[in-house]
Formats: sequence, structure tokens, C-alpha cells
Amino acid sequence: MSADRRLAPGSRIGILGGGQLGRMLALDAARLGYACHIFCPEPDAPAALVSAANTVAAYDDEAVLAAFAAAVDVVTYEFENVPAATAAFLAERLPVRPGPKVLSICQNRGREKSFLNGLGIETAPFAVICTRDDLKEALTTIGMPSVLKTMELGYDGKGQRMLNTPDEALAAFDALVGDSGKKLILEGLIDFAFEASVLVARNPEGAVACYPLVENRHANHILKETHVPAPASPQTAVSGEEIARRIAEGLALEGLIGVELFVTQEGRVLVNEMAPRPHNSGHWTQDAAVTSQFEQCVRAVCNLPLGSTVALGPAVMTNLLGDEAHDWLAILSDPKAKLHLYGKAEARAGRKMGHVNRLLD
Amino acid sequence: MSADRRLAPGSRIGILGGGQLGRMLALDAARLGYACHIFCPEPDAPAALVSAANTVAAYDDEAVLAAFAAAVDVVTYEFENVPAATAAFLAERLPVRPGPKVLSICQNRGREKSFLNGLGIETAPFAVICTRDDLKEALTTIGMPSVLKTMELGYDGKGQRMLNTPDEALAAFDALVGDSGKKLILEGLIDFAFEASVLVARNPEGAVACYPLVENRHANHILKETHVPAPASPQTAVSGEEIARRIAEGLALEGLIGVELFVTQEGRVLVNEMAPRPHNSGHWTQDAAVTSQFEQCVRAVCNLPLGSTVALGPAVMTNLLGDEAHDWLAILSDPKAKLHLYGKAEARAGRKMGHVNRLLD
Repeated sequence: MSADRRLAPGSRIGILGGGQLGRMLALDAARLGYACHIFCPEPDAPAALVSAANTVAAYDDEAVLAAFAAAVDVVTYEFENVPAATAAFLAERLPVRPGPKVLSICQNRGREKSFLNGLGIETAPFAVICTRDDLKEALTTIGMPSVLKTMELGYDGKGQRMLNTPDEALAAFDALVGDSGKKLILEGLIDFAFEASVLVARNPEGAVACYPLVENRHANHILKETHVPAPASPQTAVSGEEIARRIAEGLALEGLIGVELFVTQEGRVLVNEMAPRPHNSGHWTQDAAVTSQFEQCVRAVCNLPLGSTVALGPAVMTNLLGDEAHDWLAILSDPKAKLHLYGKAEARAGRKMGHVNRLLD
Repeated sequence: MSADRRLAPGSRIGILGGGQLGRMLALDAARLGYACHIFCPEPDAPAALVSAANTVAAYDDEAVLAAFAAAVDVVTYEFENVPAATAAFLAERLPVRPGPKVLSICQNRGREKSFLNGLGIETAPFAVICTRDDLKEALTTIGMPSVLKTMELGYDGKGQRMLNTPDEALAAFDALVGDSGKKLILEGLIDFAFEASVLVARNPEGAVACYPLVENRHANHILKETHVPAPASPQTAVSGEEIARRIAEGLALEGLIGVELFVTQEGRVLVNEMAPRPHNSGHWTQDAAVTSQFEQCVRAVCNLPLGSTVALGPAVMTNLLGDEAHDWLAILSDPKAKLHLYGKAEARAGRKMGHVNRLLD
């Protein structure tokens, strides 16, 4: 690929979505000399407060989308629930990275698992559920306990129910489908030793770079802590990183994705799900890796050489949820702690307000 | 001092000036959850592109300044040549940190040297020059070679002339004074082994934190490289840091200053000048210290606990002047290099376009 297909510093990066991931992406893009333009439906978004330009409009407003496309050089996103039609509309006009096909795979749990299994990568056993009869039949093979989830949308435990009894199963079906006619997916429960993730970036000329395997600890389905490196054998770490690399290549990824994994007691590595954007479990890279995941995402979508993914040492990232962000004074008093706050006005319970990175000795 | 005099994350920091120092200050302020408001006369300033708010107006427009004062919680600056009247006007309305007194000392080479000598800190010998006769008389004590400088303004070698002969001296006087009637200052030339600097921060409750002594190498009077740590004996390093600390306390500093030093062959440390703001020679802290100078400046002006000033290891910062910024691809290909670009459109010769930090092994 010729150098002129690289997007030089000074180019304009359009970001769909205005949350904290877009904010941190915009901050690192600015550091490299890029100007970001946030497109999101909500005014005063965290990302818009640190970006050169900002469009507040609905994702299906084509006139505004066309103007946005004309104002930027490449488009990426900071969350995966951008309507597929929005990504497709933009992709006819300029590079959208990752592309609409990647977005479409990551938006649908069934497509995602089929894609992974097609690459020979293990996932939880699953079945697509349209009717109560589908569910009854799937339970005979997948069994319980298992998890019933909406096929699309849903995050941080929203849109899913644990199934332990046939009665619970049918009640969960009714609650999740309601009168929407939405498809569901039944997933077998994995008996994992710990949850993990790997970030991987690939640029359009095909360079791939993986970060080390890390462990993620959740509370109430929300990420609470990331431990770097994961407490895994070297073989397990390599196998997690290999899986991420195969996914990046299988997707012909242009950008950065977070791959969520289950690691079993015996060191087997299964993929839980993928996010086609910077990932909460990659925030440690801001202070404990040579290249942050946000800088790496900018490098990938601008077709620059990828940065070093070497960790500076063991580290822990702790999310600040709701009121926990009020502890800023204690955190700032800890010489090892690096505080990151997202500029959100209201500290609602469970809301991601910020995080803290600590490099350990 | 009570905790309620701390400015909590979410507060609004007003910054006078919109250049790269303001830009990097705004980026680090955002990371901590603060919102920046840039006040500067030029549109499309590098800092404005990454800040929540932006006022483009003249520094003497009092109506606009009053509105700015009402819109922010504290004011700081990113360059020291803000008119004294502007700082005074704002300081009647809200905290201005560093305060107008510090600004006034740093703006005037004569006041600056007198202040330093009053603290028992050595500077170059100097004399205030109003007339040709003043200059002739001063040359009899200070001698030549020496340097004739404008008393105020001037940076990167602008507004100064080296004097080697009596004829040169009179020509320099005429050239620098012109018909402005401006005061000049004659400074004896220091036979230094190297130029150095120390950054020091002090918060309103009196905590002081110094960064290590670093060496600065100039080309054409413009900073080219900073080497961390400086090639100095431990005693010399401590004496540079002690000087910075005495200055911070002597000024009752609220904020961060850069102190430029001369270190002689024998390890004597003299102060060249001070800048009441983040300093080009402190850019290494972004990638090679626990706390960047920009985060430290935010902590100091918001009266937060100061961050750790420990260096992560030896490092070199290299300025990218003019066309050197076009080397971004080679820099991004170096796994040790951290690129910082300021988003300036035009790479004029000698213009500071960005810098690179490299942590050495």
C-alpha cells in the first residue's frame, strides 16, 4: 500500500458516538495532531467537549450524515450499536473503519458466534431462538444453567437472563421478547476459571498488533477491575493472543477490537464476544503500555504503523462507578494512581464515571 | 486550607493564550475531568480545538474578560506576555494562578533578576539600560562579550544582541531601542558547561514538588533537545532543585513554573530566567514521568495534592521545528518514540510544530 493512502496528521477523524471511549480517542488523536469530529444524538457529550467539531443529530438523518462525511477523512465509532444503515451510508462516501461488515458481525450474537466457529475458534454452545418451541428444543441439547440473551443490543448484563429451571426459561423468554418479536439466543454457561480479554489492532495494509492477555473481574455484570497480565500460563496467554490475531485477520479488520474471553481451569480459551472499538478492559494501556489503545486505534484507522503493545509492568485498572468518582481526592493523593474522569455531570448508580490505573512494582 | 477550597473535577479552568502549551494543558485537564475555556485573540488556536469553550477577543476587552471570568472557576496562562492589566482585572474577580505579582516578576528581566538576587540566588551580572550613557557605563563593569536584551517580551533569541565590541554595543542599543524608548538590560555572559532547567509546582496550600534537573540543548536560540537527567553530579542536581524550590516559596507560587539555569564547569548553578507556566523543557514528563507537567499544573492551580515527579528512566525530548514535523511517519515507525503534534496548519521555518519523547533503556 502506498504511503499516500495513509491519513497524515492534520486529517479529520469522524467518530460516531460521544461517550467516554470517544472522548479518550479524541484526546489521543489530538496528541498525534488529528482533529476529531463527533457525531452523536445527545448534546454535551463527553467526547464533544474535547473535539474540534461536533454534530448533534439522529443517526438516520441522511442530510446531516452527508455533511459529516464531507467534513471528515475517515469515520470510526466508539460504540457498536450505530445503525447498520448509518455505517453503510457513510461507507459509500469515505472509509469507515472498522467497516460495516465487521460492525454487522459484532452487532449480532448469532452472526458473531457463527463467524468465530467458522474460524475454528471455540465459543459457548448456542442456539438461535425465535419461538418458545425453539427454546424448549435448544434446552434439551444446551441444558441449564444457561443464559438467554437478546440477539442484538444489550451490554453490561442488560437484555439477558440466567436460566435454571424450565419455568424460569419460559418466563425469561416472555420478558425478553415481550411483544417485540425480537430474536433471542440461548448460550450454554461456561465453567470458567476467569474472564479475560485481548485487544488487537490491524491497519489496512495488514499489520497486526496484539496487547497482552489481561484478566477482567466483574461485579453486577459490569467490569470492575482489569489485572495486567492475566494470571495465566504462557501457553494460555499466547493462545488468547493467537485467537485475537486470527479474528483480526479473519475480519480483515481495519481498526481496533476488544475480544472478551473465558479461560477455563485447564487453560482452554473461548471467545465470549467482541467489540469493534476501544474497550473498557484496555484502559490500562493509557498508563501501563507504550501505546494506549486509543492511540493504537487512531494509528489503525489512519493506516499508520502500529505502536508497541509492550506493557511497562504489572498494572491494575479499576473502574469508578457512580459515587466512586467522588473519591477523586484520595486517588489524587496516591502517588501510584493515574486518575481518568469522563466529565459526566451526574454520577448515577453504576454509571461509568472514570477509572484509575495503577502500575504495580 | 480546607478541602472546599479545592476545585473539584468538573470545574472550569480558564486559560489565557491558545498555543501548544494551552493545548497540552487542556488535554491533561480533560483527562482529570476538568473543562477548559481558552481566551485568546487568534481564531482556530491549537488549544481551542481540544477545549470545551473558546473566546476569541483582545486581552484588553474588559466586557469580554468579565464574561470569561464569570464562566470559569480559576484562570491560568500558557504564556507570560499576557498584559499585566488583564491579569489584574481578572484577579479582582476570581483566582488567577500564578497571580499577577508572579506574572509581573517574570515579565521583566530586571525585576526577575532583582527578585532572585534578593533570595540569595545567583544570576548573570546585569544592569538596567535606559540611555547610551547607561550602556557605556555598564560595559565598564560587566564587560564584553555580554548580551543586550529588551527588558520585556522577547523569546527564543528574539529581542537580544550579543556584544563583542563598543561599536556593536552602540549599534545593538540603537537597533533594540529604535524610537520606542523601551528599557534594555545588559547581562554578563556566563561561561556555562550546559544549560539546564527545573520545573517546580506549588499549590495554594503550600505543597511544593520539583522535577529532576534536566539538560537543554539549543540551536539558533531555540530549544532543540532536553536530556533527562542532566549530566550533573548529585550535588549539582540537588542544588538546581533547591533553587527552584526556594523560588516557588519566595514567589508564594500557585501553579507551575519552569526555571532555566546555567550550570558551570565547577557545578555552580545560576538562574537564567523563569516562565510562570508549563515549559518546553518539561515536555519529557508526558511520557517519562509519573505525572506530566501539564497534569501537575492543573493540580497546582486547582489546589489538589501534587503528583509524583519521579522520572520513569532516562529520556530525551526532541522538538520538531518547521519541516521536521513532516518526519511523522519515521517517528511513528520507531517503537520507542512518542509523537506529539500541535495541530498547526503551517510548518513555517523554526516554528514549534511538535515534539518527540523517547524513553531510553
